[in-house]
Amino acid sequence: MKTIGVLGAGQLARMLALAGIPLGFKFLYVDPSHSSPASLLGEQIVAPFEDATALQKLADSSDLITYEFENIPVSVVRKLAQTRSVFPPPIALESSQDRLLEKQFFNQHGIDTAPFYPVDDQASLEHAIAVLKLPLILKTRRFGYDGKGQFLVKSLEDAITAFNQLGQKGIIAEGFVKFDRELSCIAVRGIDGATFFYPLVENFHHQGILRLSLAPALVHNSDLNLQASAQVGRILQALDYVGILAVEFFEKEGRLIANEMAPRVHNSGHWTIEGAETSQFENHIRAVAGLPLGDPKPRGFSAMINIIGSMPDATKVLKIPGAHLHDYGKEPRAGRKLGHLTIRADSLEELNRTLQENLNLLPLETAKQWQNRLNR
Amino acid sequence: MKTIGVLGAGQLARMLALAGIPLGFKFLYVDPSHSSPASLLGEQIVAPFEDATALQKLADSSDLITYEFENIPVSVVRKLAQTRSVFPPPIALESSQDRLLEKQFFNQHGIDTAPFYPVDDQASLEHAIAVLKLPLILKTRRFGYDGKGQFLVKSLEDAITAFNQLGQKGIIAEGFVKFDRELSCIAVRGIDGATFFYPLVENFHHQGILRLSLAPALVHNSDLNLQASAQVGRILQALDYVGILAVEFFEKEGRLIANEMAPRVHNSGHWTIEGAETSQFENHIRAVAGLPLGDPKPRGFSAMINIIGSMPDATKVLKIPGAHLHDYGKEPRAGRKLGHLTIRADSLEELNRTLQENLNLLPLETAKQWQNRLNR
Repeated sequence: MKTIGVLGAGQLARMLALAGIPLGFKFLYVDPSHSSPASLLGEQIVAPFEDATALQKLADSSDLITYEFENIPVSVVRKLAQTRSVFPPPIALESSQDRLLEKQFFNQHGIDTAPFYPVDDQASLEHAIAVLKLPLILKTRRFGYDGKGQFLVKSLEDAITAFNQLGQKGIIAEGFVKFDRELSCIAVRGIDGATFFYPLVENFHHQGILRLSLAPALVHNSDLNLQASAQVGRILQALDYVGILAVEFFEKEGRLIANEMAPRVHNSGHWTIEGAETSQFENHIRAVAGLPLGDPKPRGFSAMINIIGSMPDATKVLKIPGAHLHDYGKEPRAGRKLGHLTIRADSLEELNRTLQENLNLLPLETAKQWQNRLNR
Repeated sequence: MKTIGVLGAGQLARMLALAGIPLGFKFLYVDPSHSSPASLLGEQIVAPFEDATALQKLADSSDLITYEFENIPVSVVRKLAQTRSVFPPPIALESSQDRLLEKQFFNQHGIDTAPFYPVDDQASLEHAIAVLKLPLILKTRRFGYDGKGQFLVKSLEDAITAFNQLGQKGIIAEGFVKFDRELSCIAVRGIDGATFFYPLVENFHHQGILRLSLAPALVHNSDLNLQASAQVGRILQALDYVGILAVEFFEKEGRLIANEMAPRVHNSGHWTIEGAETSQFENHIRAVAGLPLGDPKPRGFSAMINIIGSMPDATKVLKIPGAHLHDYGKEPRAGRKLGHLTIRADSLEELNRTLQENLNLLPLETAKQWQNRLNR
């Protein structure tokens, strides 16, 4: 039985294992947190990602290695890659860890982004404001997630406050894009270069956290899925990528503007467990293990609702037609992703009706945002 | 986190855990075999089912208890039921362990069976032959599975040989039914009495082992699913059943003849993992945990092919459109169920075409039998 080593043992690793065990794999994780969501599904080495002994054990005991999140030191992954296959390739991790390199990479491959400018001192901050105009967004170049480490600034005063809070260097300024909506593209590429794209997904964020994904996204311009797959296809090829890649876009007037990418399975792809012929988790495992990829074709219409802070009553939510509950087994804590609920329906009308009857599962603002889109 | 205790840690327990972990449950197993298929997914107490210490530990550490196969001593289950909820109820286990009681139970509830006669000595054997006529089938009343412990006898001489091999008592003689095909009905009943039926499945056996299930079974007489659910519904109610129940039928001239039942998830329901909105495994967990049941509605058309004796090359079978591989992680051995492959398609034509192109996955006789049915 082959063992897949995973850096990280959170909910993404857990769902990778749930998809990989039926294919005959065992799982071994390195993660610093005790009683991680994936620890029920294999052995966990409880250690920091930089722990040399833990990494040696991981390399020794695994046939191949993957990772569930992108804030792992690239040096760790490069070291592991000396003795074991590591997928996605370390270069993809490196490109996605730094927002400046990431945007430059997008632009080099003909993919639009918001205008941006690196900020490392007061002078470059002032220059960024002059070039990009206010309002703009200041973000840490590295280690931001779920809206953390970023500020929308509307005045010079705001900008200086944010600049100081972000540590005065390693910052990127991004022009503010008044986008129409947020979309993401989940793609998978095999070791042999075979590539499949899931249909675009429409995402609704609140307080920097994904709350709702609708899949497939309704596209009035039928060209949009082609635009996305052409662009993401170029990224996959440039990185000689293997595994699932997620790219987040803004849509503005029928055009895609890339925001960021994640070299891993992605929250906006969780709907694929029930809503697609082959889930993103199974396809990631198939890809990294050198197996043929599975069909990404959607099955009807899905809404994925993140469960944040506290779990709902399972006896209630499982009464919702087409509802599938995923409880990650985590301790409740404000703002923490504890699980998700996917509602699947055969028709969009049925899905919309079910969502309408269960808007209490969403933050008020997300519910309103969804209703506004529905009525447009 | 609640713990579900399971008697048995084979592939059925493994698939129960794969469905139950996302619902937030942990699993604990008792099974005498080392490195059982489910042992990757929770803790296994390696001990015989009768081991008092193991059972005490199981009861102490579990919130509720279920079982994955029906040849567990009823006394064990009754003992556990004194301190913990045990589902399906012990009475269902008892009724299904003895072919004589099972058939009497069916008949009492207006469900047809083959004619039968208990055989415990030479006189009753002769009487059985006189009443049922030759050919007939002699079976052990208890502990038979996958065609083991049964003989088709065509002459008095055959009958005496089989009678001796079966130990001269605890035998049931069954009239030979020239049936048109084999069907099964998978049903689920919740603690609140809510009941759902999956559509009838058509099954193809070879050498006593299930090889192929087609779901939903094509029914020319639309009444057949109603007949099945009415009959199985009576069984569920009579036993105050909780969980998945499988009933195997013969179809003869549009009539159903019950063969046997299994108070557990069933091989002929494995297609539901990809082929139904809610799998039999998830619905069993939902039922025994007192959660609302999920929709059993099929998604398109599925063929479930058992993998017996040796695993096929995953790089080949995963190329088949709509193929989903389940490797139970067992040591290969002749005649052993090592996994299954479900092929799902949106239309019956597509499924038939894919099956036709992959007949090498079936024993020759099963392939022929399927083709004959196709051409009828």
